[in-house]
Amino acid sequence: MATKIKNLNYIFNPKSIAVIGASQIEEKVGGVVLGNLVNGKYKGKIIPVNPKYTEILGLKCYSSLSEFGRVDCAIITTPSAIVPQIAEECGKLGVKSLIVLSGGFGEVGNKDLETRLRNAVAKYEMALIGVNCLGVLDTKTGVDSIFLPMHKLQRPPAGGVAFITQSGAVGSSVIDMVAYYGVGVSKFISYGNATNLNEIDCLEFLEQDSETKQIILYIEGTKDGKRLYEVMKRINRKKPIVVLKAGRAEKGSKAAFSHTGNLAGNYLAYKAAFRQAKIIEAENLDELFDFIKIFNQPLPVTGGIAVLTNGGGLGIITTDAIESSGLRLADFSARANNTLKKILPPYASVNNPLDLIADAKPELYNSAVEVLMEDATVGALIIIVLFQVPAMNESIIEVLERASGDRRKPIIVIGVGGEYVSRFRRELERRGVPTYGSPQAGVAALKKFFEYSKFKGVLKE
Amino acid sequence: MATKIKNLNYIFNPKSIAVIGASQIEEKVGGVVLGNLVNGKYKGKIIPVNPKYTEILGLKCYSSLSEFGRVDCAIITTPSAIVPQIAEECGKLGVKSLIVLSGGFGEVGNKDLETRLRNAVAKYEMALIGVNCLGVLDTKTGVDSIFLPMHKLQRPPAGGVAFITQSGAVGSSVIDMVAYYGVGVSKFISYGNATNLNEIDCLEFLEQDSETKQIILYIEGTKDGKRLYEVMKRINRKKPIVVLKAGRAEKGSKAAFSHTGNLAGNYLAYKAAFRQAKIIEAENLDELFDFIKIFNQPLPVTGGIAVLTNGGGLGIITTDAIESSGLRLADFSARANNTLKKILPPYASVNNPLDLIADAKPELYNSAVEVLMEDATVGALIIIVLFQVPAMNESIIEVLERASGDRRKPIIVIGVGGEYVSRFRRELERRGVPTYGSPQAGVAALKKFFEYSKFKGVLKE
Repeated sequence: MATKIKNLNYIFNPKSIAVIGASQIEEKVGGVVLGNLVNGKYKGKIIPVNPKYTEILGLKCYSSLSEFGRVDCAIITTPSAIVPQIAEECGKLGVKSLIVLSGGFGEVGNKDLETRLRNAVAKYEMALIGVNCLGVLDTKTGVDSIFLPMHKLQRPPAGGVAFITQSGAVGSSVIDMVAYYGVGVSKFISYGNATNLNEIDCLEFLEQDSETKQIILYIEGTKDGKRLYEVMKRINRKKPIVVLKAGRAEKGSKAAFSHTGNLAGNYLAYKAAFRQAKIIEAENLDELFDFIKIFNQPLPVTGGIAVLTNGGGLGIITTDAIESSGLRLADFSARANNTLKKILPPYASVNNPLDLIADAKPELYNSAVEVLMEDATVGALIIIVLFQVPAMNESIIEVLERASGDRRKPIIVIGVGGEYVSRFRRELERRGVPTYGSPQAGVAALKKFFEYSKFKGVLKE
Repeated sequence: MATKIKNLNYIFNPKSIAVIGASQIEEKVGGVVLGNLVNGKYKGKIIPVNPKYTEILGLKCYSSLSEFGRVDCAIITTPSAIVPQIAEECGKLGVKSLIVLSGGFGEVGNKDLETRLRNAVAKYEMALIGVNCLGVLDTKTGVDSIFLPMHKLQRPPAGGVAFITQSGAVGSSVIDMVAYYGVGVSKFISYGNATNLNEIDCLEFLEQDSETKQIILYIEGTKDGKRLYEVMKRINRKKPIVVLKAGRAEKGSKAAFSHTGNLAGNYLAYKAAFRQAKIIEAENLDELFDFIKIFNQPLPVTGGIAVLTNGGGLGIITTDAIESSGLRLADFSARANNTLKKILPPYASVNNPLDLIADAKPELYNSAVEVLMEDATVGALIIIVLFQVPAMNESIIEVLERASGDRRKPIIVIGVGGEYVSRFRRELERRGVPTYGSPQAGVAALKKFFEYSKFKGVLKE
């Protein structure tokens, strides 16, 4: 592995971080980043650098990094014009890694400035994340260069999902959604212009990262499509990759170019490559978010889906979504049907979707799930809960957690509604149960999960 | 208009309501409904009826309605077997309208029981909503028979959107979503088995209802497709109708039949009819919800869309969505370009999508919106806000409210994220500004709105 990729370890697990361009002004990038490090989980040494100040947030502020000495990682937030000379200074001091948040390089026409920076960084074999980016978040070590304040943008808990994003705006928006629902994240990397390290380097680093079980990738373009394809194909076998490719159509592609200076390329070529490598492609941001959550579930071994519901109409909509997406409902075995008949009230009929009727209590869900977990015709369970009905109560959470913890079959939970439903969904997500806000979203995620299971040779139909 | 439809007025604006089957047990349907009336906005007289009790929630409870006498409306929550005789009793007393929440009729095979009820109701020309439903909500008069407790299912504020739903589960879920975002609703009707009044009757009633400006319809099937088509076509010219047809595919259709006893029919025939009548069809629940919010905006007169953003990547994704949906970006006039150049910082370039860069303050949004409102090339504005960046603050709400209040062009706001973003979105929705949680959702809604504008002859391209 190249030294610069190895040096990424100093970005995610540094003993010391300098914030070059640190600020006393809270809303400035250098102020937000320093504040997030000081008030966050990071336990190492923090060194603010800015000739304007002698102290920030109770820490001694240095006029230059040389005044302090070597650090493992420097986060740079200064105007772009002086970044190359700062990088040179860092290199001389033996700094191993840089995160350059500053914009104002190739993306606005300053190609020479970016080349000077690239050369300085290469000379010292430093790892550089940036420029023109949000940098990184490590939920375990607490390294956090995302210059959006914590009270505005929540940080997710530790977990197995890693993010690589070319766009800071897209990456941070998704992180915010993910954090809201409590989905666990290992590492977040916003790499911007990819001046030194690009999406391929990040992928190869995460391939080796033991915290990362699954990778989410947002790209607008790449400089080496062939190699990206090969690396993604290799990694996807071990750690599923969900990708969103933006800058597709003519104008989108043009916009992407002026955004980070990368040519977006022909989208159809990307699409074909993803399909060839069995990469899970998200068509839009909603799908990207929806596809993240299901991969903590066991891979399905058969294609039949069981739908449980306490709201008939929601069962019908889910059935429509299943059929129109090319998936199929399970035909329950005679044995399962007989057992279900015994546990269901007399006026309920045994069908799939299985309508438990609005007065179903959590215990009835539990009994029905137990029957369907046993039934070989069922490959996956979609459990729809109208949480708002009088008969439903908090104990449904344990029932659903148990169903998800069973591990014989994947389950997803669908809950449609407002604040009350959202509380249930968040609690379930915290316990590792994938939840969706609509039948459409859940079924789309399940479809991708079935495809991945097929690719892995687990689902054989 | 038939007497039974006229009598719907007694359902939505009754001077007195009897709850037959009222209960002291809070979780029972008859307990929830009585509680919601007593604790809600309804100002008329409430009469609990149940031979088991002498008092509920401080109100005198009658052993039968005859003991009390005539009311304008009776909500019936008793077991199905005794509903026909209660309806007969109500008819004799001169009750004008019934809401029967009870299930256990045709949908579980008790066709004769339902016919007996239908005949009793017809004899007295009463209006009957139900059976097997949630009944109605009137946000103005406070009539509320939705048997989901208010702390679990929020009620929306008063406004112009009316709902007609065959499924209580679907209807209540959507109402809950709508209430969460504060979208204004006039009337909600869950009509279940359509024993006496069906979706066509409800549509004709809402056609005349001065509170209702727009109609949302969820149907699984109908008994008179031809008439439904004619009525929808007529009303859609005056009040836009958004429809979700469920029970489409083979199994979905079968499930719909066992749900409310209606044949779902051939979905393609429905689809063709909707297209012919220019009805706005939602493909799924997400779309149904998304399509509701945009119709309070002025109809666009030209097809060019301006995209404003403070996050480049989100602008690119939005551009992709616009192009792939067959809409188009505006080519700003030379005059607009020149003015924009003056107000934007020197490092920002004037393009569409217009990237105001992450440090854009609300004032810059305001100036850019003013320019684009003036520019004849722009038919609609998509305003993307990364609310979480340090430069953004609460005053963006006034800027966006002013943009929406301008009324020369429709605007939508896109905000992607978690709790912090959700607070902004809810405040904006309360002020009548349509917001969306993803580019995809906003663009899909805009596409339907453009089609409707074309149908109305306002958009001419």
